[in-house]
Amino acid sequence: MALYVQKFGGTSVGSVERIEAVAEKIKRFRDEGHDIVVAVSAMSGETNRLVALSQAISNQPSPRELDVLLATGEQVTIALLCMALQKLDCDAVSYTGTQVPILTDSAHTKARIQSIDTVKMRRDLDAGKVVVVAGFQGVDQFGSITTLGRGGSDTTGVALAAALKADECQIYTDVDGVYTTDPRVVKSARRLDRITFEEMLEMASQGSKVLQIRAVEFAGKYNVPLRVLSSFEDGPGTLISLEEEDIMEQPIISGIAFNRDEAKLTVLGVPDVPGVASRILGPISAANIEVDMIVQNVAEDRTTDFTFTVHRNDYDKVMKVIEQVADDLGAVEVKGDNTICKVSIVGVGMRSHAGVASKMFDALASESINIQMISTSEIKIAVVIAEKYLELAVRTLHAAFGLSDESLV
Amino acid sequence: MALYVQKFGGTSVGSVERIEAVAEKIKRFRDEGHDIVVAVSAMSGETNRLVALSQAISNQPSPRELDVLLATGEQVTIALLCMALQKLDCDAVSYTGTQVPILTDSAHTKARIQSIDTVKMRRDLDAGKVVVVAGFQGVDQFGSITTLGRGGSDTTGVALAAALKADECQIYTDVDGVYTTDPRVVKSARRLDRITFEEMLEMASQGSKVLQIRAVEFAGKYNVPLRVLSSFEDGPGTLISLEEEDIMEQPIISGIAFNRDEAKLTVLGVPDVPGVASRILGPISAANIEVDMIVQNVAEDRTTDFTFTVHRNDYDKVMKVIEQVADDLGAVEVKGDNTICKVSIVGVGMRSHAGVASKMFDALASESINIQMISTSEIKIAVVIAEKYLELAVRTLHAAFGLSDESLV
Repeated sequence: MALYVQKFGGTSVGSVERIEAVAEKIKRFRDEGHDIVVAVSAMSGETNRLVALSQAISNQPSPRELDVLLATGEQVTIALLCMALQKLDCDAVSYTGTQVPILTDSAHTKARIQSIDTVKMRRDLDAGKVVVVAGFQGVDQFGSITTLGRGGSDTTGVALAAALKADECQIYTDVDGVYTTDPRVVKSARRLDRITFEEMLEMASQGSKVLQIRAVEFAGKYNVPLRVLSSFEDGPGTLISLEEEDIMEQPIISGIAFNRDEAKLTVLGVPDVPGVASRILGPISAANIEVDMIVQNVAEDRTTDFTFTVHRNDYDKVMKVIEQVADDLGAVEVKGDNTICKVSIVGVGMRSHAGVASKMFDALASESINIQMISTSEIKIAVVIAEKYLELAVRTLHAAFGLSDESLV
Repeated sequence: MALYVQKFGGTSVGSVERIEAVAEKIKRFRDEGHDIVVAVSAMSGETNRLVALSQAISNQPSPRELDVLLATGEQVTIALLCMALQKLDCDAVSYTGTQVPILTDSAHTKARIQSIDTVKMRRDLDAGKVVVVAGFQGVDQFGSITTLGRGGSDTTGVALAAALKADECQIYTDVDGVYTTDPRVVKSARRLDRITFEEMLEMASQGSKVLQIRAVEFAGKYNVPLRVLSSFEDGPGTLISLEEEDIMEQPIISGIAFNRDEAKLTVLGVPDVPGVASRILGPISAANIEVDMIVQNVAEDRTTDFTFTVHRNDYDKVMKVIEQVADDLGAVEVKGDNTICKVSIVGVGMRSHAGVASKMFDALASESINIQMISTSEIKIAVVIAEKYLELAVRTLHAAFGLSDESLV
């Protein structure tokens, strides 16, 4: 008998029929004797409907009132899910973020959870009830309703699991787990049984969209075992947890992530003096643009080349900013390319294995794919290549590192 | 500079455009220097949408969860109205029933208000803000969301006005005040400038649907001046307050109420012994049917006739119950008629004027309208007549008591 926190997203509760299916799934766990706390999102489409209402009134709605509005979405779901559970003779009780309470700071529309009071939930679990909590929302010290921002329901699930010291936080989605890479690109991509928090973070930040980065970070920090499963099919899903003790069993590479929406800018002939990097990146950060990879080559002739990548949507905006900066710095030229992509191999196993990088570069070279930039972390190697080679590169690396499900090759 | 509580119903806030119109109306009062607290309903149609969602899941949803669901309707409105006010540079802040808090008992879906905390509202008013409160909802001592039942937003408005000792509670509706009778029946019907709580109660319970009876009772109990006005046109509306000191100025009759949805049942030849009335009405009350008028004639020959009226929808059900009862009592016969209606004249002035009843009966007789039943209170005389005479009776009485707006006759 375990305590599970189960999170169901907007698609999983997108209609009355789906809410009833979720209730049946929860009841099966209850019938096995487990204690269940559920975190739910708004029914799919509902948040957009509410946002449209607010935008019809104001293009700059007060964040406090926007949160009051948006929080109704999850409140509708918790009530309906409890009704569906009760209809199955499964005792259940709902709580809004205010009722739990889930205490947050006062940063409306992007609040951070500060603490969760577990008294009521413990009492209800002891009384045999399923506890259904509104995801995505909390309450600040003044009693104002707050929301956690996009993907906040995943964070609610993990935070509840951490506060309740749950055995597992199960995130139900429309995919049945985390894959070695996107099955739409590589048909033989394999569902991973396990992956570490670190690997999942690299996979997520490199463009794999199964889980919100923030929720994974949160789970890693509090060591909450996280399982990604399908709402619609049964199956073990993928368990995301701390690194296993027995490193021998770790595969070298767990997966391949990629990101299409990249653009690259290079400032050529920058004076090689201290403070140049911040003079280049300062104005970009001031314009609220996020920079991803940064590479600076070794200086020749007292000048250097400075390259970085941004989201493709920001390309034109950044080009304008950077041309001005280059002028001020006396740089030679600014070059850009918005037809690039990023491909990364991720795995805790590479820590203890030499030669992973050269194997990656060999594989790409064998297909005549030119590498434009390289960036590494302890458990990841990322390369920038021309976008047209993306699928070829991912397939080639997937095969080179033996990731394929042999039954599908 | 006064403190007004303004209540806007579902039709008044039924669309983004109407919410913006309400915001402009509120701002005009603010600009005149008044303090404003607003109570709002759910946008029209929203409560029905939510009820339909719950019914798709369960025909017996848990009242606690139904309240969690329904309370979202008003929560959406308070957020949107605040956004609309802020867009007009009118500082505003929203509160749900839980946030105020409006403390109620735990009778979900029909809770009663126990107390209202005015600390936050006073602070906001002092800071120059418009306070927007969700109507229809509250919170019980355990922190569970409650709702007050149909028409509960009127009650919220009156309760807020009582708690804040407001100068007036203004109820904005789709009519511009209380009329001498329904203008659809009598074209020359006149808007009343003033009416007493007692008269309004008789008008409301006799079928005039402008205000919820419960809200009028509440206003009378706490002596909160109540004004009914149109959301869509400017005008003074009708003020509902305590009886004026100067009785000389009271008209004898303030208005004429009527109710079509009546049915009448008579048990003929009932033994005239103590306890008969309760033996007849007991089983009807046990079947959860409300009885309106009751008349028992003086006994002849040790038997009497017992007549009462019920809502027309209950007629068939009551007939079955009462036929059994009549058998048990050894009554002669049960007769019924579901083509009747009730017409009442209402006015505090009749207390001090003799001859009101005879004037009423004369007027009806002059049109050959037969009176089937008569019931009186201190400020009301109600008669039951055949439904086909309803319009004729109302017009005749309206003219006989000089109620018409002469410009419209």
